[in-house]
Amino acid sequence: MAAQRRVASLTRQLTSAPAELEGFDAVSTVTDVVGSTESGFDPRSLYEFITRDNVQLRDTAMEFMQDDLYKPNYYQSLMDFREQTLQRLQKYVDQRFFKTMDYLKDPRRFMAGLEVLALCDYSLAIKAGVHFTLCGGTICKLGTAKHHAKYLPGLDSLELPGCFGMTELGHGSNVLGIETQAVYDKETGEFVIHTPSDTASKFWIGGSAQHGKVCTVFAQLTVNGKWEGPHVFVVRIRDDQGKLTHGVRIRDNGPKMGLNGVDNGQIWFEHVRIPRDALLNRFADVAEDGTYSSPFPTVGQRFGVTVGGLTTGRMLIAGGGIDASKIGVCIAIAYACQRPQFGSRYIMEYLTHQRRLLPALATCYAMHFTLCTLKDIAFTAKPNAKAVHVLSSGLKAAATWNRVEILQDCRECCGGQGFSAENKIGPMKTDFDVDTTFEGDNTVLMQQVAKALLESAAKSRTKLQRPDLRPEEALTPSSIQELLQFRQDALVAQIGGEMQRAAASSSGKAAAAASTAAFDANLDLVVALGAAFYLAHNALSRPHFQAVRLFVNENCSRLSSNGGETLLRLCAGFGIPDHLIQAPIAFDWRCIGKDL
Amino acid sequence: MAAQRRVASLTRQLTSAPAELEGFDAVSTVTDVVGSTESGFDPRSLYEFITRDNVQLRDTAMEFMQDDLYKPNYYQSLMDFREQTLQRLQKYVDQRFFKTMDYLKDPRRFMAGLEVLALCDYSLAIKAGVHFTLCGGTICKLGTAKHHAKYLPGLDSLELPGCFGMTELGHGSNVLGIETQAVYDKETGEFVIHTPSDTASKFWIGGSAQHGKVCTVFAQLTVNGKWEGPHVFVVRIRDDQGKLTHGVRIRDNGPKMGLNGVDNGQIWFEHVRIPRDALLNRFADVAEDGTYSSPFPTVGQRFGVTVGGLTTGRMLIAGGGIDASKIGVCIAIAYACQRPQFGSRYIMEYLTHQRRLLPALATCYAMHFTLCTLKDIAFTAKPNAKAVHVLSSGLKAAATWNRVEILQDCRECCGGQGFSAENKIGPMKTDFDVDTTFEGDNTVLMQQVAKALLESAAKSRTKLQRPDLRPEEALTPSSIQELLQFRQDALVAQIGGEMQRAAASSSGKAAAAASTAAFDANLDLVVALGAAFYLAHNALSRPHFQAVRLFVNENCSRLSSNGGETLLRLCAGFGIPDHLIQAPIAFDWRCIGKDL
Repeated sequence: MAAQRRVASLTRQLTSAPAELEGFDAVSTVTDVVGSTESGFDPRSLYEFITRDNVQLRDTAMEFMQDDLYKPNYYQSLMDFREQTLQRLQKYVDQRFFKTMDYLKDPRRFMAGLEVLALCDYSLAIKAGVHFTLCGGTICKLGTAKHHAKYLPGLDSLELPGCFGMTELGHGSNVLGIETQAVYDKETGEFVIHTPSDTASKFWIGGSAQHGKVCTVFAQLTVNGKWEGPHVFVVRIRDDQGKLTHGVRIRDNGPKMGLNGVDNGQIWFEHVRIPRDALLNRFADVAEDGTYSSPFPTVGQRFGVTVGGLTTGRMLIAGGGIDASKIGVCIAIAYACQRPQFGSRYIMEYLTHQRRLLPALATCYAMHFTLCTLKDIAFTAKPNAKAVHVLSSGLKAAATWNRVEILQDCRECCGGQGFSAENKIGPMKTDFDVDTTFEGDNTVLMQQVAKALLESAAKSRTKLQRPDLRPEEALTPSSIQELLQFRQDALVAQIGGEMQRAAASSSGKAAAAASTAAFDANLDLVVALGAAFYLAHNALSRPHFQAVRLFVNENCSRLSSNGGETLLRLCAGFGIPDHLIQAPIAFDWRCIGKDL
Repeated sequence: MAAQRRVASLTRQLTSAPAELEGFDAVSTVTDVVGSTESGFDPRSLYEFITRDNVQLRDTAMEFMQDDLYKPNYYQSLMDFREQTLQRLQKYVDQRFFKTMDYLKDPRRFMAGLEVLALCDYSLAIKAGVHFTLCGGTICKLGTAKHHAKYLPGLDSLELPGCFGMTELGHGSNVLGIETQAVYDKETGEFVIHTPSDTASKFWIGGSAQHGKVCTVFAQLTVNGKWEGPHVFVVRIRDDQGKLTHGVRIRDNGPKMGLNGVDNGQIWFEHVRIPRDALLNRFADVAEDGTYSSPFPTVGQRFGVTVGGLTTGRMLIAGGGIDASKIGVCIAIAYACQRPQFGSRYIMEYLTHQRRLLPALATCYAMHFTLCTLKDIAFTAKPNAKAVHVLSSGLKAAATWNRVEILQDCRECCGGQGFSAENKIGPMKTDFDVDTTFEGDNTVLMQQVAKALLESAAKSRTKLQRPDLRPEEALTPSSIQELLQFRQDALVAQIGGEMQRAAASSSGKAAAAASTAAFDANLDLVVALGAAFYLAHNALSRPHFQAVRLFVNENCSRLSSNGGETLLRLCAGFGIPDHLIQAPIAFDWRCIGKDL
């Protein structure tokens, strides 16, 4: 199924989210900046307008990456690339652009310091993200003062490279079902971490194959013979000299289709003893005598607060996908505006090219603003945790599926040059491809979004409103909003209705099972069709579609006119400096190879 | 724009092609082999049925690639990978599975011998394809006995590694516009090959950066001051010792996003003198005294026969994309049938998984039969050259765009395991990504197909027939055929009509220009929407769509039942041996890493 359709479904959910999403009028404000003439506006002003925080920090960090160490080298072997990635991270960390504790204290700064890395190299961004966000953030959020004092200085300096031990060979999306055991031994006051089977081995653990020294390990806690659910423990996997600690076995996960600067590994724990203090005890603790305590009485509640900390990671993944899309679009449009084909006509003048690259450019801006809005919701004094979870899950899936499609179009629009490593789009495609399934498989995340919508619809029953639009109105901002809302409501009503009917035919557990089965049987609607939906539901007619098509084609032509000047300024508005764009075809492609 | 939609458009053109496509009832015959129970059929019988030629040769060649030399090694550096690819090719060539002259004498054998390589490693397949098909095939087809005697023995043994010098930095799709010059010097009886500017440098020339010794060079021929259009010359670019010949400069094109076993290069010729015999003179010749002769009087006609030889290459690219899709589907389905998630339920049992992998599996079979049919049309005594050109162009675009989407779905369906290099899908994604733009950019090829359809429609005016189907009939083979035919006819009528109206408003050159502009303004329809089309054109209604959805979902569920046995047998029917499937997740994924 085409990513575009799945994404359209999610975008709709995001754009029609509750009033909290107040940043959504941002687009009309861009028009103010850009001006009604659509040309001649200053890209730097646009960049400063769309960049909601830490402009100075981002400028400095991007400037810093002019250092030769950050220039790409695609000739090196996998092991050399990993070593280079570590060096890059060390030098970046040495600048102290942010601290691990900013995860809690200044999350916008924390994210800005990491977001910039994805513009340079995704291996570097992910190695940093695992260390600071997944490991460091978990220690910040789930740990207490003693953990902060013990680990954060080493994390800040990278003396203590961190890993995140959640996923297991047999358990990816189902974190509640992990097998790794943590049993409290009150005789010694220690926890015993153990891998009971091969499927329980920790898998894809970034940074663990070579460099990691500390790992936040998810394990099923048993105290006094009672299972208390997944808890997180800080485990030293290597000593200060880099030697594996007693009882820890690690296998290198080896080469990947991309992202080969990150050393992923598979970890087994063989009755590894760790002190009682190693439990991250903000939400649950074990006293010396083995008394278990938590303000959250059920395993489910504790699990919720434990994995709730993954939100920042998902936002970073979304942001990385959006930034990669921006770079791809900048390169493809710059090339298309100066590359003639079949005579003197530039390829940007062809409608086929416009219909691929202009929606991609628009999507980059739309996704950028959505992320800004999500940050506004997440980084308030009392965020709505459920809304943040649902929106970050949805945006992560939407942004990364969009990224797949946008980079593919950009690469193809550059012809053979798009396949060359030096033109950056290809390597971004291979490196970023991981983002559709890590930190939550997109399909699973989509189902969570759908479930949240169904729950919310079950509470507030509003009548389904079919939009009544004249053809020429089909593409005004308000009509688009109306159409998206209608699709969301209609799909939710259809699936919710089928679940209710299924449940009504039985009772108790059987009813719940029937309802779940009805949900499963409608999973295809969760990722439902775009344009066909409106036609099939009589929300739009053939004249509407003809009007939409003409409107889109006319705007493509208008925006691409004048040598693509407006497009180039809109690209420049992303504020990505030339040394991070890198690609020779984005500059004077006629000179490629001339230096021989 | 989603690849699926573009592909749907092409598939339609292929399936509704004229009566020559008689192989198209193949699908119903498969049902005979598979049997009405849909399970218990013998995969080997299915394989032998769908493999129309050289079963024995394919078996032997696949068996041969059990040799350790053909095992993947993703740790090595780019330069080592290139060396390994050359060694792999040499050892394969040493088996003499086919000869270069089979390009003309036994093209099915020629293709079979090359097709098998894509199952193992695409770098190997492309290095072989450039050598045998592009270089060797060009010498066979455009050359005469003297060229065959001089070059084919060295090509057969790989003593004379061959390159194909068509593309230039400034000229990809527009071959007629290349800049490289060939001027006949009758004083010495030599041609002088020259690169007049950097944009005229030969670019992406596979095999030229390190190993190539001979190159078939496309250049604009001038004789006695008269331009005769592009002709092909055999140029030695390195001597027997591998040293560059006089006047030849080559720059390494460097790393690519994949396919790094192939050494692509950029070539400049500085007044390189080659003997008169170096002109491949089957369709045009220059006598010693400088008299030019050809049975084709115009540059356009000569150009047509010169580039007509690229058809076999396009079929091989299409076949490679289809085979990569088969491997991806085999791996993803095998994994999905044995991987539980959220308890004991296998992921193949989820509708979201079924709706991604089952259409992919079906598409593999459909594309496979389409290629068989195309071979039947191409390899007859007197093939219809235009039909072969149009169909091979269309199938190349359709198969490779399908490949993009299928491998993406397969990789995502395997979660993180799909990103691991050892599971093969990821590396296939990066290696094969080149296929959407090389040997004809898909978008350009699509336009050629559309133009051919418009020309053909302009000759035979038939009335547009809107299908009148009951909802439950919407998915019978004959109704699908009817719907596809309707879409083709309706789109052709719409674009053709607009071109005629545009032309009617003026005359002469202005009319032609207006008609071309109308074509350009409708390029988006050439890659038009799928499902929305039928709704917008009142060919299908909402009840139809509901019926289609239920029909598809029910069949997905039925075919995936019983542990996916039927699916696994259909995969096995592709006949790809385990050592070429490679991926650990396709076998016992629980053992991954156990050997530590």
